[in-house]
Amino acid sequence: MTTALDAPRPGGRPRDPELDLRILGATLQLLADEGYDGLTIEAVAARAGVGKASVYRRFSGKEELVIEAVASLTEQPEPRSGAGVRDELVTLLEVIRRKSDSSLAGKIFPRLLGASAENPELMRRYREQVLDPRRRRFLDVLQRGVDEGLVRPDVELEHAADLLIGPMAYRNLIRNDPPPGPELAAQIVDDVLLALAPKDRT
Amino acid sequence: MTTALDAPRPGGRPRDPELDLRILGATLQLLADEGYDGLTIEAVAARAGVGKASVYRRFSGKEELVIEAVASLTEQPEPRSGAGVRDELVTLLEVIRRKSDSSLAGKIFPRLLGASAENPELMRRYREQVLDPRRRRFLDVLQRGVDEGLVRPDVELEHAADLLIGPMAYRNLIRNDPPPGPELAAQIVDDVLLALAPKDRT
Repeated sequence: MTTALDAPRPGGRPRDPELDLRILGATLQLLADEGYDGLTIEAVAARAGVGKASVYRRFSGKEELVIEAVASLTEQPEPRSGAGVRDELVTLLEVIRRKSDSSLAGKIFPRLLGASAENPELMRRYREQVLDPRRRRFLDVLQRGVDEGLVRPDVELEHAADLLIGPMAYRNLIRNDPPPGPELAAQIVDDVLLALAPKDRT
Repeated sequence: MTTALDAPRPGGRPRDPELDLRILGATLQLLADEGYDGLTIEAVAARAGVGKASVYRRFSGKEELVIEAVASLTEQPEPRSGAGVRDELVTLLEVIRRKSDSSLAGKIFPRLLGASAENPELMRRYREQVLDPRRRRFLDVLQRGVDEGLVRPDVELEHAADLLIGPMAYRNLIRNDPPPGPELAAQIVDDVLLALAPKDRT
């Protein structure tokens, strides 16, 4: 995955990727334990076993640190060349479920949503960096569904993506007791593809 | 709407409903402005113009106060006897959109989700008191859809409710820029009913 960590920095020594990862890992742990409001650079530095200056050399402040840390949680599934539209959609949805299932990511995202009332910029950047790239994958595969005649050409693809992602996000975040099982992704995809199919194929 | 406010209290003077409403209103404002962590009984009492004792006479503590306040935000739509299954589902979904659209409710729910990591009981009770009754309405109407032959009898109704509520919750809470418009409820319902329809009706 490409993150801002890979971007060239103006001047300074080359970054130590191992140290970056330690700082980001400490940030994630503290975010899960304390929430956004409770997180401080001091605590991150202490948890990572580095000085505060090491954190500030790498990140402009708490907001950038948190965004980078959360971005490091996500990863795109490998491009599945050759996989059919239906199976690729199932894979993409299952990635969302597994991310929310893991206790760290599962604890962090609601806290970020809670903090977004005071800090809309945090949520906006998280959306740009994490959610939108994931969404573009859905849109690409749905467009392939149109090209292959599985999806009606008049379907609004942004809306179709909401029909797929929405139920999974809802089950992960709001109605998550009990947490959804691995069968959910295929259930959602099969139902939504039925709704989007050309009339003469159903 | 029936809430715990209507339940008989053991002993004590009869409650002054106007004062209850003032305290709950102050709680909602503070919840939206400060979040759950930042809310105190002192601040609620001051905002409502009452003494702390007046608050404690009515509510056992911060958690009950917050749950009651949030429950007071929600209202069930009038039962639409005579409305068809499709239109009733649209009405139920549109209520969810309008609740999240109003700035007060829209600010409060993400904060509650954020607080649920530390306070799962708060979210659990909110679910029982606010989300589950709403969900039962969806399940009732979906069952009517089965009875009337609009929905396949083998459809799992809990899953069908997730397919309807999920995209609306997602658009309200996560991908809410720009906020969804009044056309969304009907779009979701029409798509999901296509997915759930008996094969010979499509």
